[in-house]
Parts: sequence; structure tokens; C-alpha cells
Amino acid sequence: MTEGHAIDLNSDLGEGFGAYRIGPDEELFGLISSANVACGFHGGDPRVMERTVAAAKAHGVAVGAHPGFLDLVGFGRRAMAATSDEVRTDVLYQLGALDAFCRTGGAPLRYVKPHGALYNVAVKQPPIAEAIASAVRAYDPDLILLAQPGTALIAAGEAAGLPTAREGFADRAYNADGTLVSRLIPGALITDPEEAADRMLRLVTEGRLLTLDGQDLELTVDSICTHSDTPGSVAIVQAVRRRLEGAGVAIRPFGAQ
Amino acid sequence: MTEGHAIDLNSDLGEGFGAYRIGPDEELFGLISSANVACGFHGGDPRVMERTVAAAKAHGVAVGAHPGFLDLVGFGRRAMAATSDEVRTDVLYQLGALDAFCRTGGAPLRYVKPHGALYNVAVKQPPIAEAIASAVRAYDPDLILLAQPGTALIAAGEAAGLPTAREGFADRAYNADGTLVSRLIPGALITDPEEAADRMLRLVTEGRLLTLDGQDLELTVDSICTHSDTPGSVAIVQAVRRRLEGAGVAIRPFGAQ
Amino acid sequence: MTEGHAIDLNSDLGEGFGAYRIGPDEELFGLISSANVACGFHGGDPRVMERTVAAAKAHGVAVGAHPGFLDLVGFGRRAMAATSDEVRTDVLYQLGALDAFCRTGGAPLRYVKPHGALYNVAVKQPPIAEAIASAVRAYDPDLILLAQPGTALIAAGEAAGLPTAREGFADRAYNADGTLVSRLIPGALITDPEEAADRMLRLVTEGRLLTLDGQDLELTVDSICTHSDTPGSVAIVQAVRRRLEGAGVAIRPFGAQ
Amino acid sequence: MTEGHAIDLNSDLGEGFGAYRIGPDEELFGLISSANVACGFHGGDPRVMERTVAAAKAHGVAVGAHPGFLDLVGFGRRAMAATSDEVRTDVLYQLGALDAFCRTGGAPLRYVKPHGALYNVAVKQPPIAEAIASAVRAYDPDLILLAQPGTALIAAGEAAGLPTAREGFADRAYNADGTLVSRLIPGALITDPEEAADRMLRLVTEGRLLTLDGQDLELTVDSICTHSDTPGSVAIVQAVRRRLEGAGVAIRPFGAQ
Repeated sequence: MTEGHAIDLNSDLGEGFGAYRIGPDEELFGLISSANVACGFHGGDPRVMERTVAAAKAHGVAVGAHPGFLDLVGFGRRAMAATSDEVRTDVLYQLGALDAFCRTGGAPLRYVKPHGALYNVAVKQPPIAEAIASAVRAYDPDLILLAQPGTALIAAGEAAGLPTAREGFADRAYNADGTLVSRLIPGALITDPEEAADRMLRLVTEGRLLTLDGQDLELTVDSICTHSDTPGSVAIVQAVRRRLEGAGVAIRPFGAQ
Repeated sequence: MTEGHAIDLNSDLGEGFGAYRIGPDEELFGLISSANVACGFHGGDPRVMERTVAAAKAHGVAVGAHPGFLDLVGFGRRAMAATSDEVRTDVLYQLGALDAFCRTGGAPLRYVKPHGALYNVAVKQPPIAEAIASAVRAYDPDLILLAQPGTALIAAGEAAGLPTAREGFADRAYNADGTLVSRLIPGALITDPEEAADRMLRLVTEGRLLTLDGQDLELTVDSICTHSDTPGSVAIVQAVRRRLEGAGVAIRPFGAQ
Repeated sequence: MTEGHAIDLNSDLGEGFGAYRIGPDEELFGLISSANVACGFHGGDPRVMERTVAAAKAHGVAVGAHPGFLDLVGFGRRAMAATSDEVRTDVLYQLGALDAFCRTGGAPLRYVKPHGALYNVAVKQPPIAEAIASAVRAYDPDLILLAQPGTALIAAGEAAGLPTAREGFADRAYNADGTLVSRLIPGALITDPEEAADRMLRLVTEGRLLTLDGQDLELTVDSICTHSDTPGSVAIVQAVRRRLEGAGVAIRPFGAQ
Repeated sequence: MTEGHAIDLNSDLGEGFGAYRIGPDEELFGLISSANVACGFHGGDPRVMERTVAAAKAHGVAVGAHPGFLDLVGFGRRAMAATSDEVRTDVLYQLGALDAFCRTGGAPLRYVKPHGALYNVAVKQPPIAEAIASAVRAYDPDLILLAQPGTALIAAGEAAGLPTAREGFADRAYNADGTLVSRLIPGALITDPEEAADRMLRLVTEGRLLTLDGQDLELTVDSICTHSDTPGSVAIVQAVRRRLEGAGVAIRPFGAQ
């Protein structure tokens, strides 16, 4: 989908809960084209969800569901030994809950990207990936499944006949096999906005990225993710967007015409 | 809707949670025509919700959403000083969540009846009633709002242009003004199945009911509720159903043709 | 306890939860002498609680339990129709949970002050006040109950034989009867640090305070509360502390020698 | 501790929550000598906890804390990738919460046995076992840690200087290495009360048990656990108790004189 050079920018938003605010949602909404909206299990509550969908609509940002494990205190970042059936039904519940705000807010639900530990488990474990794809397909087979290319999650989406979209990461270093460098290794996080911008421009226009150990990785993506909790995430997204737009790359949601 | 003498029987179902079972769901599904299905806030979890919708479909029972306050330990029975906005968005969230299982389970969501303390607050407080009606209307204006006749909740539903249905209670004594006798007063609960059956037959065929203080109350209802946690609820519903069917009254969901 | 002119300064702390931070805990710990520590029901989690107790110990700040209603999404600010027995046992649970960190952290639990809606209900409703006092007394009769003077909560504490402490509010206007002006009325909130400091100095040294309608209110307090979520709370506590210390008033926990 | 032939019988109790009941607590209290009491994370609420401690006191049954993962919908049976620090502080929180009811209920907290997935993780993973032992030791070094012999949990307890007690299982088959046969393998569950009784009598009096593959396993235990959710658990405990008492074995809490 990068022909003519257009790309999507996605970030996690709407992760506040009750009196708690988290993440620079206001700034990011002006920069991204797709918002992964928390659905109440790892963050987000019905008021936050409604406001986030309304803000997405106001900014012309596509809405994606960002379902997670039911673990508010762990922010959905702790893997849980949930069964496939538990994952499938938990995702269905969260899709429906968020969609209620999409339907009443006039901003259609476009895609699904699992959150945190659920994402990390799903990219590696086919049964969990299939549970998610099964839930998405049963709910609405036009929903796009967004994930890292070459993972069990993309494979499960394709096997289920779902449209899929592939994402790269502006704030993360890569291994030669296309996986992300573990956060435990120095250099895993890319926090210099200009470096991130350089890398993402090359990724979008050439389909290539330098790995941490200096190799050239071929990678095709439909979206660039910047984690909203990476230090300086707003500056990174700003630099990436400016660099891409300066080079004539259009920023728009994947799947958009 | 009682012409030709047909009536609906409704009960609360799907209120289990995780390892916890509650209520005689299996027996009730063979007797009722409408199931008020918990949506995860006061009871119910995604697995229970999916199973309950599937059982409703299998039994030809209509599915209604049964949203409640977010108070699992209190089973949704404790009034909370929630704002109208909190109630409206909490109901939207729950409607969407249950509807995910209705859509994927092939059993359409037909109606909404608030649970426990939310019901009790909504029948008396117009702002809360309006918040619920507003959520239901925004979500799907064809959903029927089910509540006690003469209440703020029915009024709010009508003002919002929603179809409404009225319910009477097989297991509760009435005051002369059509309200229920407080559970604190002796005689408030009707637990004798034959007495309940006699009362409900007269209610359905004559539109009349004897109040606790011996007056004759005129009442028109579309549905008869038996609380699934009333002692002997299954025997009550069995007796009511047998008596009504014996008198030629058809048992079918309100709103059905 | 104001003889010799010493006073306590208290604020709510440790209200973060998981990935969520809230309130200027770091700044406040250097200014106050008593910390009302959330116990997990309206805010706080086991990690936050342990860290908060450790910070209190490091700053020589007294630790108080700040139990609330089980309503994280509402931050404990919504009144709930909980029974006395529910309140009593919920408070016991929270006291024990926080005390685990006090015992292992070497900072003894000194006092109890209910949070938010539980405080607001308890100052007016004797059965709820008695439930709280009963829990505190059963847990440890040396714990001090901290509340507004002239309320049901202080009365219940005294009736239960508990030591009590009385608090005034630096950031709130008063009515002539000693109650707080409702937040709905203009002027209810005092956000000018110097005004707050002037008022608190007079309160501590003269036992008097000007009400919103210009009357002179006699009030004796052992502690001054500044709500950590009042805009500019840190500046208010700074100004109050500086003014009091400048006038020779010692800042130290109530109940301290 | 089996000299003179005395043994403890333990089961999980107090796992209800709000309106939900689970497990045959009433029957088991008359049969066991130690109750593993849920602390609110996987089951149990403050009312249930207080009632369970009171029932334990009334029956002369020792009270143990039964902390679990914060996963009510999963009943604490799903492993979570919690850090050692999260486990340590979660256990501390739960110990304190339950102890509040022990202290006010006059039934001292005697021991700690982790629940479900936390137990299963702790018997295998030293860092989690050490986190639990560290929490118990910090809270009260006289508390006994109860677990399966030969596990990381017992090792961690001993390394921390805690008193430990070892348990065998009346309702489970054993492998030759002393581990339990996986529930996925036929014959893993022992549901015949007489068979369980025979096995437990031999275990207590001879320190031997026949494994599923017919070998003779040497095993020394201080307590016999019967899972309260094993089908027919009450009949199993009844048979075990009757058989043991018939053979002159005293049933009493481990650690008791």
C-alpha cells in the first residue's frame, strides 16, 4: 500500500481511566492518522472511549480497537495464560464495547490491533493469533488486522480471510530477522527524533531499514507505530511526519482510498 | 399487547462470573420467552454472555441487555451516585459488549432492561432514566425499553421515541398506586407458585391484580418478570406458565408477531 | 493540640495505580506532616502503597490509612448505598492491607481518614460513621480518627473511645455553621496561596476563620488539609507552611509529642 | 511431624464473592483442621473473609492465608507474567487484608499457602517462590509456609528461615518423582473416597504412596490437601478422616502442640 508513497501513522490512545490521565493524546491526535483505542480492559473507560472516538473523528483519524488482557493494574503488559476461548471472547467483548461508541459517535471502527502482552503473545503463538482473528472475523470481516509483518498474527488474519495491514516501529531497533531488538539490550529504543525520521523515510520510500547490527533489512509496511509511552514520543512522531511530508509522502490511514 | 391473550415471561439470566454459577439458568430457559442477559458489570463475563446468548437462541428466547452499575461485589444492587453521563456511557458500553455476542451468535438484541439498583434508580429519577433512554436510542432506536409501567423509565423511553414494554411481577405484592411493596414489609414477596399463577392469569386476562391491602389494581403489562433469585423461582415460573397456557394464553416475546 | 502553636498538615497521597500517576506526591512529601495513603479501593496498588509508606518514613511524615469505596473508575468520589456491615468490613480490609506495608516498612500506621464519598457520607450519616469507628477500634484502638469537627464521624470516634483529631481546610471556604461551602457555589475553592496562608495562620493562632458570608467562625483544629487535586495545591501548602513557620508555629503530626 | 501419628487436613475455603457462593464450606469446616482462606484477589471479599475466619474459629480450624493472582474472572488459575516485586507486594497486601479479620476475629493467622496458578508457578520458579517467602518473612517470620515437598517454594521458605509444612494430595495421583500427574492424563484425579482414604492412611502411617505407574513413593507430609472443587470432595475428606481416626491418627493443625 506504499505505492505513490502514502503511509499511516498509528499510536495507542485513550488509555486513561477515571481520574487518571496517561499519554499525550491531544498532541498525538494532530499528528497521527490511526488511533489504537483502549477498550476498558487494560485502560480506557466508557467516558474516555467516547471522548477518544470523538477526538479521532474531529481529527480525521481512523479508529482501531486496541483490546488487551483484563489487567488494569498491569496495564495489559503482563502475559496471562488465557485459553484461546478466553482470548476470543474477551476480544469480542471489547470490540463490541468500543464499537458502541464508534456507531454512536459517527467514526466507524476500521481495524484491530491487540495491546501489549496480548500483541506479544499473539505474534508468536498461533492459537492465540487465531483466537483473535476468529473474533475479528466473526464480528466484522471487513475489519483490518494490524500487526507486525511475518508474525503468527498476520498469518492468522490472512488464513481467516481478513484484510491485514503491516506496521513498522519508529522508536525501536530491529534484528536481522525482522523482529524487534529486546528492550533489555542497549540501543533497542530509538529516542532521537531525527534518527527515527531518517529511518522511517527510508523505510517508506525504499522499503529498507538498517538493523542494530548494521545489516540492511527489507521491510514493507502500511503503517508506522510510535509507542505513546516512549520518552519524547510526540517529538518523534512530529519529526517522522515532517520528514515524510517534506518528501512528498502522504499521511493517511491504511485502507483509505 | 395482551390482545388475543399472549404474554411474555422474563427473567434475569447469565449472571455467573468466571468459576461462579448463580441462578437456575438451565431450568428457566425452558420456561421463559425473554432473557435479561447480564453484561459484565454486575455479573456475566464474556464466556457466560456467549453461552447465554447461544442458549437463548436454542430455546427461541428473546435476548435483552441487562446493564447494571459497575459493582460486581454488590451484584449491582447498591445505588451509586453516578452522573447521567456516567450512566449513559456505561449503558452504551454494556449494550455494545453484549451485542457483539448477539451479532456473532445469531440471536438479535431485542430489548434493554436495567438491572438492580440501576433499575430502581431509573424508575424514580428522570435524569437517570433519560440517560438510559438516550444510550439505547443512540445505539439502536428499534430496541425496546422494558420497565414497570408508570415510571420515569417508561416516560423517558417514550419521550425518546423508543418502543417500550411494560412488566408486572409474579413474585411481588403491589401497593394501590401500582408500586411494589417494599421487601421490608411482610407479604412483599409472593413465593407460593399457585398464588402467583392465579394472580398472573387474572393480570393477563383481566388486567387486574389484588394489592396487599385488598384493593383491585388495574394494570396492563406486556411481560411478567420473575426474579431468578426469589426462592422457588423455577416453580413459580412453571406454575405461571402452566396456568396461562392452560387458559389459552400464548407465551411469546413482547414485540414478536 | 494547638497549644504552643504546633499544627499538622495533611494531604492525600499514594493515589496512583499501576501505570497511572496522579497528584504531586514528591513535592507534597517535603511539605506535609501527615499522609493519607490510599489503600487500593479508590486508588493505590500494592507497589504504590509500599513506595508511599517508604517515602513517608524517609520524610518523617506520619502515615494514615485513607480507605474509600471500591470504585476505582470513580476515584471513590461517588456515594454508594453500602450497608454499615459492608463499610465496616471494607475498612477493615483496607486497614490491614495498608498496615502490611507499614509493618514491613517501619512506618507505623497512626491514623485513619476516610476518602472522598466515604468521608462525605460518614460525616453526615451516623450508621456509616459508626461502622468506620467500629472497624478502626476493632483493628487498633490507638489509631486516631481524623475528620472535620462537629461531624457524625468525630462523634462516632469519640463514642467508640478512639482518639480523634480535627481538621480544617486550607483550600475551602466555610459556612457560618462550620460546614464547607458547596463546590457548586462560586468562592467555594480557595486557590490563592497567600489568602490560604493568611486564613490558616489566623485559624491556628486565633482559632478563627472568616466565612464566605463574612462572619467570624470559631474553629479548633489539629490538622490542616489541602486537597492534592486542588489546582495549585503544592503552592498552597508551601505558602501555608512558610507563613506558619514564619510565625513560629511548628509543623508536626497530630498526636506526636 | 507425623510421629505419634497426627496429621492435618487442609482445604481451600472462603472463595465466594459478593452474591456468589462456591465450594462446600459448611461441610468441610466440620472435617478439616486447616482452612486456606481466599484474600480477595482470586475469590473472597471482606464479608466472606470475616465469616470464614469466624467459622474457622468456631470449628477450631487453623487459618491460613491463600493469596492468589489478581484475576477474579480466572479464579486465580491462570499464570501471569508478574514480576517478583509484584508477587511480593501482592502477597503482602493480601496477608495484611486477611490478618485484619484474623486479629479482630480472634483466630490468629497461622500459615500461608499460595493459590492456584501462583502456587503452580511458585513450586517451579525460584524467583517467584522467593518473592512469596520474602513477603511472608517480612510480614511475620512465625508464619508457616505450606507447600508440596521438594519444591522451589519449600526451598525458598527454608532459605528465608521460615517454618515450613509439607502437604500431600488425597485427590491426586503421583508420579515417581513426587510430582502430581497432570490433570490431562487419565487417572490423575482420585475421586473414589475409599481409595483416597486407603492411600492417605498408608501415607500417614508408613510414609509411602503408590504412584500411577505402580511404584512405591516415599513421602513425608504434615498435611493432606483435598481440593474443594474436586467432585465429591466432601465425601473424600469424610472417608480420609474416618479412616485415619479409625486407625488412631489424630487430626490436628500442623504446628499445633
